[in-house]
Amino acid sequence: MLFAIIAPEVTSQKWKESFEKIAPKIKILIGYETDKPEEVLVAMVWRYPFGILSKFPNLQLVVAMGAGVDHVNSGPTLSNKIPICRIVDKQMAFSMSNYIIMAVLNHHRNWYEFDLAQKKRYWAQFEIEERKLKIGVMGIGHLGMDVANKLHHLGFEVYGFSNSEKQTPFISLSKNIDIFLSRINVLICTIPYTPKTKRLLSEDFFNKLKNQTYLINVSRGQIQVEKDIISAINSGKLSGAFLDVFENEPLSKKSPLWDHPKIKITPHIASLTYSDEGVRQVINNFNRLLSGENLINQIDRKKMY
Amino acid sequence: MLFAIIAPEVTSQKWKESFEKIAPKIKILIGYETDKPEEVLVAMVWRYPFGILSKFPNLQLVVAMGAGVDHVNSGPTLSNKIPICRIVDKQMAFSMSNYIIMAVLNHHRNWYEFDLAQKKRYWAQFEIEERKLKIGVMGIGHLGMDVANKLHHLGFEVYGFSNSEKQTPFISLSKNIDIFLSRINVLICTIPYTPKTKRLLSEDFFNKLKNQTYLINVSRGQIQVEKDIISAINSGKLSGAFLDVFENEPLSKKSPLWDHPKIKITPHIASLTYSDEGVRQVINNFNRLLSGENLINQIDRKKMY
Repeated sequence: MLFAIIAPEVTSQKWKESFEKIAPKIKILIGYETDKPEEVLVAMVWRYPFGILSKFPNLQLVVAMGAGVDHVNSGPTLSNKIPICRIVDKQMAFSMSNYIIMAVLNHHRNWYEFDLAQKKRYWAQFEIEERKLKIGVMGIGHLGMDVANKLHHLGFEVYGFSNSEKQTPFISLSKNIDIFLSRINVLICTIPYTPKTKRLLSEDFFNKLKNQTYLINVSRGQIQVEKDIISAINSGKLSGAFLDVFENEPLSKKSPLWDHPKIKITPHIASLTYSDEGVRQVINNFNRLLSGENLINQIDRKKMY
Repeated sequence: MLFAIIAPEVTSQKWKESFEKIAPKIKILIGYETDKPEEVLVAMVWRYPFGILSKFPNLQLVVAMGAGVDHVNSGPTLSNKIPICRIVDKQMAFSMSNYIIMAVLNHHRNWYEFDLAQKKRYWAQFEIEERKLKIGVMGIGHLGMDVANKLHHLGFEVYGFSNSEKQTPFISLSKNIDIFLSRINVLICTIPYTPKTKRLLSEDFFNKLKNQTYLINVSRGQIQVEKDIISAINSGKLSGAFLDVFENEPLSKKSPLWDHPKIKITPHIASLTYSDEGVRQVINNFNRLLSGENLINQIDRKKMY
């Protein structure tokens, strides 16, 4: 019995250490190179070569090592009988929401302007006023709901948007994205990456905004068109952007995003999955599978979220 | 009947405009120079020459134009019969709490390190981890309570400290400051400036901290000893500081605080009083005074808060 971890090196190492600590008897394979592929029962994956899972004839469970599952290229090579689960942990919502709220507050209170003033030893007391925000959260799933609730609790005007109608303490809109986009001046993207959301954040989309809007994307880089974000900032449609995700990661050193004065960049760290919690959930789901119980956080293979 | 506004120029102008909008019939005196001092019934003050209020023989109400009242040098020149009120508004708590949470989150998620990485076009994905915070809020009054509740709601471990025991959803300590200081690694100061808190944030005080601690001061600069803050950061007692207030304001261009890499500075803007709300509260209290009702947000002349 082997559990395979197929992911970038640093992440793989962290998960391996968590397995050694939490379940030392489980044998771990790092990567997919093995002379006993028939022993692999569980594959934990994050960005891995397409089709590689077909190497394992006895695979019983695939686990996406984070909230997003778009990178699990299940496709025709993975039998529909094999369940795919994702990791959902409280700590992830805590991290993600704090990250987003940081980006919102730095914009709200003009932190970047005060930071520049400090560098000039300038006492900028009166000329910089806090911004009145109307915050739109696009995608009210597990993570989007958490941050929208928290921003509402901080006293902000919050609008949520999702495909299905939801009961929320903040204003909730569904179906008509144009109405949503006409009301806001901060846009937080927490939607999953699917064929429908691919390259959604583009010129046409930004043209639907009525107010100059600040963009925060913590979902997936594939939902954005980076050249259109730069144009929209330069033309004044967007007031700036805080981006944690990019079309190609790591972001190329040649990208013009790095030194745009109105773009802030972090290296896909808004919400790192905590390996200890991840490992506990993998083991829990494997045990449920063995005893025929329903799995936790299993994803819908048609919607892929 | 005259209402005097004795404050710095920009603030005076904003309050005058709010009076013209909300109560255009009330005559406003900017400053204290007048040939009819007997007509001044209400004085709204923020940093003004000591003893100047004795010029007005018919003064009935003094209003501190913000949350702090330390700058109202009532002293022997102001009869104890004249009530002093302060402005308490919801918007102020909204602003103050958002400012503090911004400072906390930038520290929590290492924003300053990521900002430096961006300037170097460096994809710093794995080496910078979010910090586990134990946040102490020293001073659980109107504003301290608001931010402590909000930080608790965001999922942080929060400790409050105040002179009197309070029922709070977070851990609340009183009397023994040493226990409080031994538990935390972020210290938020929201205590009023009084003779007892003068120069409290000094070497002796920092030596009581058990963990390396991040300091956030939004109260008054007079409660801090700036050279001791710099020493405590350089020796590693403090991990850094986010300061909105200073021993002398505006902060001198020569101050070493400006370019210390671990000190962030804003120019006393954490919570600006909104003039419209302030003017409404002044008028409300003046009407209450005329009809013999209790005043709102009247301060205790002995405690001076």
